[in-house]
Amino acid sequence: MSGRDNNIYIGRKPVMNYVLAVVTQLNQGSDFCTLKARGRSISTAVDVAEIVRQRFMKDIVFVDKIEIDSEELAEEGGRTRSVSTIEITLKKK
Amino acid sequence: MSGRDNNIYIGRKPVMNYVLAVVTQLNQGSDFCTLKARGRSISTAVDVAEIVRQRFMKDIVFVDKIEIDSEELAEEGGRTRSVSTIEITLKKK
Repeated sequence: MSGRDNNIYIGRKPVMNYVLAVVTQLNQGSDFCTLKARGRSISTAVDVAEIVRQRFMKDIVFVDKIEIDSEELAEEGGRTRSVSTIEITLKKK
Repeated sequence: MSGRDNNIYIGRKPVMNYVLAVVTQLNQGSDFCTLKARGRSISTAVDVAEIVRQRFMKDIVFVDKIEIDSEELAEEGGRTRSVSTIEITLKKK
């Protein structure tokens, strides 16, 4: 669909909020969904993927791709610092 | 070498301790190294991989494989709870 993307950005909300968002997206016609997180939220992204895959959509989705990278974040004072990122793509079988 | 494995377990020590362990292992003849972490340490494992790959061994190593899974941990009282895990394999080019 035009203007729609399949990304879900993982932040500091409760894990189940994101699980619900992923399950909803995959149940509404998308055949994949990409979880994106950085810094401390990376662990949460893995939790979301595992809960969807092992509990809510068992035998329906699989982990299609996992990529890690780094981003430069601007800090006060003009400095930058590097933050790790992850992208986990879940796909319907 | 007999009895030796290529796993490095990521816990709560400072990130640079693990970076040093990975760099040392890869410089001492191993052509790959697998970082293993669970729970909140997953973010640290990604940090370690990124720092090795982008800063200390740039153009020398690449991310060969990333796998996520879950483990059951026994808790007091006989209950179990699920914890997410990650394995990141860095390989020399």
